Amino acid sequence: MNRFVILGHQAVTTGDFSLDDLGGRAGWLDTLTRCVATAFQLSYGIRKESDVYLVLMGGKDAPKTVRFYGKELRVLATNERSISGLIRAALTRNPEGRSWIRSAQGIYVSRLSFEQDLSMLSKKGCEFIYLTEGGTDVREFDFPEEPCFILGDNVDPSEKEQQLMSQYSAKKMSVGPRSYHADHCVTVILNELDRRL
Amino acid sequence: MNRFVILGHQAVTTGDFSLDDLGGRAGWLDTLTRCVATAFQLSYGIRKESDVYLVLMGGKDAPKTVRFYGKELRVLATNERSISGLIRAALTRNPEGRSWIRSAQGIYVSRLSFEQDLSMLSKKGCEFIYLTEGGTDVREFDFPEEPCFILGDNVDPSEKEQQLMSQYSAKKMSVGPRSYHADHCVTVILNELDRRL
Repeated sequence: MNRFVILGHQAVTTGDFSLDDLGGRAGWLDTLTRCVATAFQLSYGIRKESDVYLVLMGGKDAPKTVRFYGKELRVLATNERSISGLIRAALTRNPEGRSWIRSAQGIYVSRLSFEQDLSMLSKKGCEFIYLTEGGTDVREFDFPEEPCFILGDNVDPSEKEQQLMSQYSAKKMSVGPRSYHADHCVTVILNELDRRL
Repeated sequence: MNRFVILGHQAVTTGDFSLDDLGGRAGWLDTLTRCVATAFQLSYGIRKESDVYLVLMGGKDAPKTVRFYGKELRVLATNERSISGLIRAALTRNPEGRSWIRSAQGIYVSRLSFEQDLSMLSKKGCEFIYLTEGGTDVREFDFPEEPCFILGDNVDPSEKEQQLMSQYSAKKMSVGPRSYHADHCVTVILNELDRRL
């Protein structure tokens, strides 16, 4: 599996937002939905080997994690509005403790924080790779068996988040000489992985 | 300049569509807006060297071409809804003949068809590169001074469109071993160009 953890520092955690204002009141949820689309979409079908965790940290019910699990997803619309609708539906559910609730086929929601996500994924054998300028170039990167890529939204990771990634020995990777949006980083990573196969 | 011509075979040509249904009644306009976002967006600022032509061929006032011209664009929202709103505003204007009407800073609309776009761009010295499976890999490609990349939406180019591209000696290029959506192709192309600079 190719796992992606996307940090949504301001992203909503309740389902009471409008799909007409994803950038504003939904806390830049559009950034996260574009990462979901990019992680799964191919011209013909979806990438069953992708597994995406959106870490939502904004609003009055933070934190929550919404998971899109490629092995179970059958179809996924390409546009921001549809994917945001799926996230909104997940956020109307009420998970307890660390359990995951299934919101739709291949889509789950939990109250896991970023720290708890890293702990859970580490136990699954994932090795973390943090996307940042100055990291090892993706074309030279020695990918582990179970890579888990961590990407930020439009806010840099906090000191605490950076410390957490260090505790899990996250390696640093970059995708080129210029600074890209998270979804564009996902495209470049997947293009490199497609070429290695 | 890095020019992109995006074929929107079913994309609307009048401004009377809803931003809530870009995939349906707007003829997959969301596909085109994602190409615009991808061609311009960087983490900090926009790519002033991009120049995007959306060739709209659907609905009752076809054809039209909407141009996003990086040298003049100051800002550009990242989300589909906002960019589609800019396209809709351009489509409420009424260009005549082959002239371009300015709809907003850096955004123009004309009645040019794909054939007329190619003729106009060829006179500017552009060399055409058509994105298709089986083309020369982007990493091995010998880019011309004034590249103009032609990408289709979710419908393959018609025989007539392919003949036109052949007339202009368009070269074939691919972005990897799997078949991607147009916006993902744009990301991979720009990543390669960024690395060549």
